[in-house]
Amino acid sequence: MFGKLIQPEIEEMVAARNFAGLRKTFEDWHPADLAELISDINRNDQVVVFRLLTREVAAETFAYLNHDDQEELIRAMGRHEIANLLNEMSDDDRTALLEELPGKVAAALIQLLTPNERTVAQSLLNYPEESVGHLMTPEFIAVTEDWTAGQVIEHIRAHGQDKETIHVVYVVDLFGKLIDDVRILQILLCSPDTPIREIRDDKFVALQATDDRKAAVEAFRHYDRTSLPVTDSRGVLLGIVTVDDVLDVQEEVATEEAQKFGGLDALDEPYISAPFWRLIRKRSGWLIILFVSEMFTATAMSFFAGEISKAVVLALFVPLIISSGGNSGSQAATLIIRALAVGEVTLSGWWRVMRREFYVGLSLGAILGVIGLARIAIWQLLGFANYGPYWGLVALTIGLSLVGVVMWGTLSGSMLPFLLKKCGLDPATSSAPFVATLVDVTGLIIYFSVAILVLRGSIL
Amino acid sequence: MFGKLIQPEIEEMVAARNFAGLRKTFEDWHPADLAELISDINRNDQVVVFRLLTREVAAETFAYLNHDDQEELIRAMGRHEIANLLNEMSDDDRTALLEELPGKVAAALIQLLTPNERTVAQSLLNYPEESVGHLMTPEFIAVTEDWTAGQVIEHIRAHGQDKETIHVVYVVDLFGKLIDDVRILQILLCSPDTPIREIRDDKFVALQATDDRKAAVEAFRHYDRTSLPVTDSRGVLLGIVTVDDVLDVQEEVATEEAQKFGGLDALDEPYISAPFWRLIRKRSGWLIILFVSEMFTATAMSFFAGEISKAVVLALFVPLIISSGGNSGSQAATLIIRALAVGEVTLSGWWRVMRREFYVGLSLGAILGVIGLARIAIWQLLGFANYGPYWGLVALTIGLSLVGVVMWGTLSGSMLPFLLKKCGLDPATSSAPFVATLVDVTGLIIYFSVAILVLRGSIL
Repeated sequence: MFGKLIQPEIEEMVAARNFAGLRKTFEDWHPADLAELISDINRNDQVVVFRLLTREVAAETFAYLNHDDQEELIRAMGRHEIANLLNEMSDDDRTALLEELPGKVAAALIQLLTPNERTVAQSLLNYPEESVGHLMTPEFIAVTEDWTAGQVIEHIRAHGQDKETIHVVYVVDLFGKLIDDVRILQILLCSPDTPIREIRDDKFVALQATDDRKAAVEAFRHYDRTSLPVTDSRGVLLGIVTVDDVLDVQEEVATEEAQKFGGLDALDEPYISAPFWRLIRKRSGWLIILFVSEMFTATAMSFFAGEISKAVVLALFVPLIISSGGNSGSQAATLIIRALAVGEVTLSGWWRVMRREFYVGLSLGAILGVIGLARIAIWQLLGFANYGPYWGLVALTIGLSLVGVVMWGTLSGSMLPFLLKKCGLDPATSSAPFVATLVDVTGLIIYFSVAILVLRGSIL
Repeated sequence: MFGKLIQPEIEEMVAARNFAGLRKTFEDWHPADLAELISDINRNDQVVVFRLLTREVAAETFAYLNHDDQEELIRAMGRHEIANLLNEMSDDDRTALLEELPGKVAAALIQLLTPNERTVAQSLLNYPEESVGHLMTPEFIAVTEDWTAGQVIEHIRAHGQDKETIHVVYVVDLFGKLIDDVRILQILLCSPDTPIREIRDDKFVALQATDDRKAAVEAFRHYDRTSLPVTDSRGVLLGIVTVDDVLDVQEEVATEEAQKFGGLDALDEPYISAPFWRLIRKRSGWLIILFVSEMFTATAMSFFAGEISKAVVLALFVPLIISSGGNSGSQAATLIIRALAVGEVTLSGWWRVMRREFYVGLSLGAILGVIGLARIAIWQLLGFANYGPYWGLVALTIGLSLVGVVMWGTLSGSMLPFLLKKCGLDPATSSAPFVATLVDVTGLIIYFSVAILVLRGSIL
C-alpha cells in the first residue's frame, strides 16, 4: 500500500544500479506490497527489481501480480528462472496463471515443471474454469485416525512448511476417503499419545471439486471456516480451498453481477487494462439488443400519432411516465436479484414476493401519481404553463397512468429475475436497462390507453 | 443446508415431546445448520429446540441466527438463560447483536454480562458502526518477545481454548504496542527453548480500530490473511478481526452498492423480513427525487411543443433516443463504480477515463446511429411505416442525435461516479436511474436541437 510513496526513490536506486541498497530495502516488505511496487514501475525496472528478490519471496510476489505483469515478466525471464519460479508457486496460484495464458505458452510452461508438479498442474487444469476444483490446492495434511497427536505434530514439524494452511488436519480412511477434520489447536491441547480417533468428532463439511465456485463462497459464509476440504464424487480427499481465494471469488462474482445489472456482458478483466475494442464489443452487444427492443416504442407511439397530433400536451409527459416505470422496475429488480443471490428468497417464493410487490407498486404509484397531478395543477394555476382548457383531465390522465405504470414496472422488475432463474439464466441479467426497456413499451400503451379513456370527448 | 429436508420430522418430534431423540439428532449438527433449522420452524418450536442445545452449542448457534430470530428468542428466555448465552458468545457476534437491538433492550442485556465481558462490550460499542472496531474480537494471544516457543505452546494449551482464532500469536512490547505477528506453525517447528525474538521477522500488517470496515476487506484481500490485528492510533493492540466476519462485510457492502445502484437507499436488512412501510420509505425517497428531476423533461419538451405539433413524427422517437442515452450511461457508470470500488481506478485517473470513454461513446453512438438510420430507411422503403416526404432528413436527425446522446450519456455516466467521490459521497449513488434521469433531460435538448438544425426549411 505504501508502494507509491517511495516509487521515485526505488527508480533512482535502479538507475544507479544500487542493488545492495534495493535488496536491503525490500527485506522487510510484504510480497503484496512488492507486487504493487512492481506493477507501478516501468517494464525494464520490473525485471531488475524482481530478480533481486529471493526465490521464495519472488514466487509469492509473482502470485500477487496481475496477469498482464506476470506475462511480461515471464517473457523477460530465461527458461531456468521460469522453472524455479513455477515450481516454487503454490498450486492454486499457478493454476490461475496457466489458465490466463494463451494455450501454447501454458503448455510450454507446464513442460518446465518437475514431474510431480506437472501431474498436479494438469489435474487441476482439468476441472471446469468456474469450479471449486480450480481454486483448490493439493497441499494439505491428511492422517489416518490411528495416528497419535504427537505423531501429527512431528509430521507437521517435518513436512508442514510448504502447506498453504496448517490450521486443520484431515482424517482419511485407508482408501483416502475423507472422514473428519481436526483443528491443530485441539491436537496441541491433547497429551502427545492421544490417538486422533479420540479427538475427532465426526462433524465435517466438504466441497466437491465439480461444485460451482459460488457454492464455495456460500459454504465459507455459512460455516465460518478459513479452509474447507474438497473431495471427488466418491468422497476421496483431493485438496483444500482457502478463504483468501474465496474472498477474491466473492469480489469477482459481485463485479460480474454488477456489470450484468448495469446492462453489459461481464468484463472478466480490469476495466483499465481491457483493450478498447473488447470494451466496445462487451458493451455494444446489449446496447444493440436494447436499442432494437426499444424500437417498439416508436411502433407503439405511431399507433397513437393521431392522438398526439390532436393533443401535443400528451407527448410532453411521455419521458416522465415511462422513466417512472423504469425506475420503479429497476429498484424492484435490484432487491430481488440480491435476495436471490444471497439466498434470502428462493424460486418457490415468487408468489409471496409478487403479492408484496403488488401492494408496494400500488403505494409507490399512488405517491407519484399524487405528486404528478399536483405538479400539473400548480403549474397551471400559478401560470408557469398552460395545458389547455381541459388541464384537469390531463392531470387526471397523468395521475392515473403513473399508478398503472409504476405498479406494472414494479411487478415486471420483481418477477423478471424469477423468470430468468426459472429458465436457468442468471437473474442479474434482468438489468436496469433491460427492465426499463421492457417497461417503456408497455408503459406507453398504458399511458395512451388511460388518455383515450379519460380524454375522449374533450380533446381527443 | 440440510435443515429443510428433515424439518417435518423435527416438528413431529417436538410435538411428541421426544426430547431425548431430538438431543441425539442434534449431536452431529453444525451450529450453522442448527440455526437454519431454527429459523425455518415456527416460533414456539424454536425455543424448545434451542433449549435442548448444550450451552456452548447454543451460543454458537445463536450467533448464526438472523437478528429477528435472535430478538424473538431473547424475548422468550429468562434472565438467567440470557446471561449464560451472552457471556458464552464471542465478542464480535455479541457486538453485532447488541447493535441491532433497540437501545433500551441492549442496555438491559449489557447489565446481564459479567463485569469483564461488560467492559469489553461497552468498549466495542463505542466505535462507529461501520468501523473495524465493531468487527473486532479482543480474544487474541499476545506475548512479549522474550517468551520461548515452549512457553507459548504451554500458554495456548492452558488458555487458548476460548480464542476465536489460534493461527497467529501477536508480539507486543511492554506497553502493549504491537511489534510483530508470528504464525503458530513457525513456533511449532522450533525447538521449545527458542525465544520468540529469534523467530519473529519484523514484518506485520495491522488495521486501526477507527478504519472503515471496507479498509478491512481491502487489507484481507491484499495480504491474503485469515486474521489481522487491530490497534489504536498509538499502535497498542486492541483485538483481531477474523476473515469470516470480513466475508460477511464484503457481501453486505456488495448488497448495499447494488441497491444504491438500483436507485434506492441501502436496505440494511433482508428484503424478505423488511416491514412493508420501511420498504416503501426506502424506495419512495429516491423515486420521488428522480420523479421530480424527470419533470424537467416535460419542461424541456414544452419548449419544443411547436416543433412537435408541426412534426408529430419527432415525438415517436423520443423514448428511443433518451433510453439509448440512459442505457449507455448506466453501462459506463457500472464499469467506473466497480473500478473505483476495487481500486483499479483512483480519483486522479478521471482524465484518462474521460478520454477513453469519449472514444467509446463516439463508437457506440455511431453503431446505434447507423442502426437507427437503417431502421427508418428500411421501414419506409418496405412500406411498414410512413415518415412523410422528408423521411430521409428524419432518418438523418435520428442518426446524428443518437451519436450525440450516446456519447453524452457515456461521458456523464463515467464522470458522475468521480464527481460524487470527489464530493465525499459514495460513487454507487450514481445509480442507473439517476444517470438515466440526468441524461433524459439533456438528451431531449440534444435531440430537438439536431432536429431544428436538420429539418429547418423542410418540415419545421
